[in-house]
Amino acid sequence: MLRAAIIGASGYTGGELSRILCNHPEIELTAATSRQYAGKALSEVFPNLLRKTDLLCENLSVDELSERADLFFAAVPHKTAMDLVPQLMQDGKKVVDLSADYRLRDVATYEEWYQKHSSPEFIAEATYGLPELYREQIKRARLVANPGCYPTSIILGLAPLLQQGIIDPSTIIVDSKSGATGAGRSASVGSLFCEVHDGFRAYKVGGTHRHLPEIEQELTVLQKSDVKISFTPHLLPISRGILSTTYANLNVNVSYESVHQIYTDTYQDEPFIRLLPKGSFPATQHVRGANFCDIGYAIDQRTNRIIIVSAIDNIVKGAAGQAVQNMNLMCGLSETCGLEGAPFFP
Amino acid sequence: MLRAAIIGASGYTGGELSRILCNHPEIELTAATSRQYAGKALSEVFPNLLRKTDLLCENLSVDELSERADLFFAAVPHKTAMDLVPQLMQDGKKVVDLSADYRLRDVATYEEWYQKHSSPEFIAEATYGLPELYREQIKRARLVANPGCYPTSIILGLAPLLQQGIIDPSTIIVDSKSGATGAGRSASVGSLFCEVHDGFRAYKVGGTHRHLPEIEQELTVLQKSDVKISFTPHLLPISRGILSTTYANLNVNVSYESVHQIYTDTYQDEPFIRLLPKGSFPATQHVRGANFCDIGYAIDQRTNRIIIVSAIDNIVKGAAGQAVQNMNLMCGLSETCGLEGAPFFP
Amino acid sequence: MLRAAIIGASGYTGGELSRILCNHPEIELTAATSRQYAGKALSEVFPNLLRKTDLLCENLSVDELSERADLFFAAVPHKTAMDLVPQLMQDGKKVVDLSADYRLRDVATYEEWYQKHSSPEFIAEATYGLPELYREQIKRARLVANPGCYPTSIILGLAPLLQQGIIDPSTIIVDSKSGATGAGRSASVGSLFCEVHDGFRAYKVGGTHRHLPEIEQELTVLQKSDVKISFTPHLLPISRGILSTTYANLNVNVSYESVHQIYTDTYQDEPFIRLLPKGSFPATQHVRGANFCDIGYAIDQRTNRIIIVSAIDNIVKGAAGQAVQNMNLMCGLSETCGLEGAPFFP
Amino acid sequence: MLRAAIIGASGYTGGELSRILCNHPEIELTAATSRQYAGKALSEVFPNLLRKTDLLCENLSVDELSERADLFFAAVPHKTAMDLVPQLMQDGKKVVDLSADYRLRDVATYEEWYQKHSSPEFIAEATYGLPELYREQIKRARLVANPGCYPTSIILGLAPLLQQGIIDPSTIIVDSKSGATGAGRSASVGSLFCEVHDGFRAYKVGGTHRHLPEIEQELTVLQKSDVKISFTPHLLPISRGILSTTYANLNVNVSYESVHQIYTDTYQDEPFIRLLPKGSFPATQHVRGANFCDIGYAIDQRTNRIIIVSAIDNIVKGAAGQAVQNMNLMCGLSETCGLEGAPFFP
Repeated sequence: MLRAAIIGASGYTGGELSRILCNHPEIELTAATSRQYAGKALSEVFPNLLRKTDLLCENLSVDELSERADLFFAAVPHKTAMDLVPQLMQDGKKVVDLSADYRLRDVATYEEWYQKHSSPEFIAEATYGLPELYREQIKRARLVANPGCYPTSIILGLAPLLQQGIIDPSTIIVDSKSGATGAGRSASVGSLFCEVHDGFRAYKVGGTHRHLPEIEQELTVLQKSDVKISFTPHLLPISRGILSTTYANLNVNVSYESVHQIYTDTYQDEPFIRLLPKGSFPATQHVRGANFCDIGYAIDQRTNRIIIVSAIDNIVKGAAGQAVQNMNLMCGLSETCGLEGAPFFP
Repeated sequence: MLRAAIIGASGYTGGELSRILCNHPEIELTAATSRQYAGKALSEVFPNLLRKTDLLCENLSVDELSERADLFFAAVPHKTAMDLVPQLMQDGKKVVDLSADYRLRDVATYEEWYQKHSSPEFIAEATYGLPELYREQIKRARLVANPGCYPTSIILGLAPLLQQGIIDPSTIIVDSKSGATGAGRSASVGSLFCEVHDGFRAYKVGGTHRHLPEIEQELTVLQKSDVKISFTPHLLPISRGILSTTYANLNVNVSYESVHQIYTDTYQDEPFIRLLPKGSFPATQHVRGANFCDIGYAIDQRTNRIIIVSAIDNIVKGAAGQAVQNMNLMCGLSETCGLEGAPFFP
Repeated sequence: MLRAAIIGASGYTGGELSRILCNHPEIELTAATSRQYAGKALSEVFPNLLRKTDLLCENLSVDELSERADLFFAAVPHKTAMDLVPQLMQDGKKVVDLSADYRLRDVATYEEWYQKHSSPEFIAEATYGLPELYREQIKRARLVANPGCYPTSIILGLAPLLQQGIIDPSTIIVDSKSGATGAGRSASVGSLFCEVHDGFRAYKVGGTHRHLPEIEQELTVLQKSDVKISFTPHLLPISRGILSTTYANLNVNVSYESVHQIYTDTYQDEPFIRLLPKGSFPATQHVRGANFCDIGYAIDQRTNRIIIVSAIDNIVKGAAGQAVQNMNLMCGLSETCGLEGAPFFP
Repeated sequence: MLRAAIIGASGYTGGELSRILCNHPEIELTAATSRQYAGKALSEVFPNLLRKTDLLCENLSVDELSERADLFFAAVPHKTAMDLVPQLMQDGKKVVDLSADYRLRDVATYEEWYQKHSSPEFIAEATYGLPELYREQIKRARLVANPGCYPTSIILGLAPLLQQGIIDPSTIIVDSKSGATGAGRSASVGSLFCEVHDGFRAYKVGGTHRHLPEIEQELTVLQKSDVKISFTPHLLPISRGILSTTYANLNVNVSYESVHQIYTDTYQDEPFIRLLPKGSFPATQHVRGANFCDIGYAIDQRTNRIIIVSAIDNIVKGAAGQAVQNMNLMCGLSETCGLEGAPFFP
């Protein structure tokens, strides 16, 4: 049994990692850290886990922590992560970092959007943990930078088109909508039930969300030239789910069928990508609780644009589920192990 | 006291018209028709209206109806409306038609998107009921075609920019999200609580929603040349509210401040347009229950695009409230009469 | 014009008071205090109020405040209220206190459930602000203790039965469910959207909620003998609304019709009580945003019990609306002034 | 591999059975019937199941159906079930009937609350499928009457107390709240999103819900004397979940600790009952998607009453999950097989 530990278990991502791992047949969950809830049962912090785990939340130093597991999930905010990861790496551990700290390959870009990086030497060692693009590298990686939730939904939707060069990258516009788990479990007025419920709003309008450089980095790799996009996030009154609606001008006159063939060729062996039939489009409630990314698309002949709609559960394929998928790959387990459950609907 | 009647009072738009009109100081609500609920109290169909109205729902012929009021709200589906309106017009009545039947000035376009038109001769007489654009014509009109909900939010957001010619109309992309009242009060599996709640989806992707020709008609008038846009509607798990996020490339290098000046110049005397301060963006929960259209905007320098976010309550400014605003104008009442209530939050 | 001020304007009750008062024709809202948001526009704290009020939130001493208005709404937590009210009273002002500080007539009971009382001498001067029971006293009062939200829904449901002595008070069980505005606008993990949404829970089970002594105080007055009840509050995933389901054994064999007559006799002239017809029961969504208390009842012959279901909007009839109703009475205005709007549904 | 079939796969219970069974390691799901959706893929009717099942919905006669599986889940409405079950039984099949048709042991009671029974001879053969009470009988049963959702939550909460005789059964009052999946997937105005969302209501007030005789039947068995209760169902604006708050007078002066001991003695080996620690109470969001029944309790010394709060996912432990638990028992599989997933929160 592989021993795994969660650093930062009391947030929504930590809770979801706990939910998935407590049923994972090849993993023993050996530690869960939380400064705020140290000493409390994890099942008190997340009462859904009662009877599923006996772990206590602990406040451990990296030294103490390091001995407790073979693989670590860093589910802490950026900045905190990069202060922990180097020592775990030096101790020979494997790490899936769910923060942003090792996602951006260019230190200057990281420091422009976040803050000074305390361990830039590990950036080169990190693999961007999107298995659909980097599966072989992930298998060999010791440090995986788990992608952001918005980037996962957007990159998976655009990758086949960019790889085939059939859209004009300068026309890409992405309108994304996220559930409230994306805002985390910290107490803040803006995340209160009464502020979010029965409402909808845009935020970080005008290209100011920190996921933007991450998205553009990967789209640029796929397009093999510099890509700049418009990206607007919105807050949905749901707990789980991201749906991204992406628009791009077509370079060439292509039919729906040939686009469908491109997606099928790219994704037919992917265990967690579901392409919807013509005329069907994703809904967040159909991926709820599971690791799927659902993708649908239409061509608007009138404007010569393609519209791609992609949906994930933001704390599963957009965070904890993808992290477990990465762990499976890094540790030689079946890629889908522990992630086979069907989405919950309704 | 002006006598007003609602044709089709049992849908959500009819219910909202009833709610507004039962408190309107210059109106006597004299009839409410419903085939399905004939004989029932309107306050049984809408229990929120108990003690606010004693009207019974009736199933009346147009002849019977015509005598009962001076102004009629047609809150019935398209097709049904155009079978009723001509006789009311011939009887010398005023009509605010909330269906799509008289919105499109080109009969051929109407017939392409809907069905054969049974009274095309009245199309020319109809005024498009967006007071911010057609106030003077509405004051003189006998037949007002009340705008669709999506079009209201989109046209109001784009009008100042198109009038000033500062955006490239071929680059307009509109990503709209609507609450579930937009789907009406008919029983259908897709509108059940469990299908909509805690979820989010796109529909009519690829330029197939019937509001598209209406939107393009008005944008074309504003731009003074043919405008074609991309438009994707989505279904939000909320009852009331539309939020439209609109993207367009700027023709010229303009600052936020000059854009703000353009909006201010256009809308400063409008009673129902609220321009948000820099860095603030609309939320549907802040217009809930009221006739406002809130608008915010940002310029993304990186891509030279402007992003406009506009929000309305889809059954108030997007339907019943705007219809009352039109009635006020048509009947010489104060434009805001009966519409002064502040939005409800939370 | 009466000058009114809100002390503690940034909570949900303060926001609702602002919404109601900014449309009240006989009131000028002259001050809104908030320590946290001092200097900010009230319409920034509550963006729904944009264009409806130009007030700034201020942090004022009681001295400064006292000059600014004739009547004050204390919408601050208990303890804070009793530190402010005495001076306002000494300055000859009228006060509607929405906290619990002057609701309990017995100081010892107050101190058992809350904390030491700093101005017990004003308790005797305070009138319990339930107009349906204490209208004449409220008209003469200078200090009104606005009832709690749960108590309002429960006392109004039981009053006619207790006054007629037809139920056994020792068998009263009240199962109440409240929307999340009841938990206030302070940041706390338990009130986050993701904790409340799509869920339901009981809290303060076993007779430990602070509204219990308030409820029993008033039921005891009505019954004219000591009443002890069971009361369990629950948290609903809605913003506004309380629904209380109350059970009691009947002392006598009474028909539905005679019970209905008792309710009708008691409440027929009440502007804000709506008795539902036989077989109909209240729903929170039908009182949303308005000052009504809806009441329905059934007799279960099998068990000889009566079940009373009562619903209010907890921040209107359960807080801000009832406070305005009290103000209207205290100041000689029409009791319903500013409170005529119909509930909004859906 | 056991071959299992679902009769009536397109409702919410059928969909949840499909979700559970498509991941059940010992079962092959061989048929799914639906008159309405015959010919459609089950994953089109429930898009969450895409890639998890290839079954088509079929419209089969009982003859055709009978050959297709060894065990049948009847997830059709009452009346329809009793017209299908007898032939399956005669063909030597095992049946878990999720309708009400074989739950009531007294035919007269059934016919009073439902309609004439067409196969009363099978009632005696049916076992009431609450494993916590009837485990050994279920293991030997060929026909299991799967309990109703409300009864499951209520009976499990009361059983230990009735068995010990410590409460007065004539004082039992049950106030239950259910999510909207309980109303089924049929199109009806009352179940529309806009009617249910952001609201709360009671229904079937006064002892008229059809689950009442089922609840009383089982409580009477446990108490060993006739039990009559008050029961009020309510509709919650959530998809999944039932929470029942139950009140009863204590016969004797017992401490919380001795009550806790009674519950622990009764349920300590039960895989799907979770007793909450003192001061903690269930929440529907903590059992969402799983087969647990969570139970908490408090004693109100002031009134000498015990209050029991129990929560289940109404379509899992209240329907599909319990049906699979019964199947496991009937077929000699591990009782928890296919039901090990943790509840998902948030």
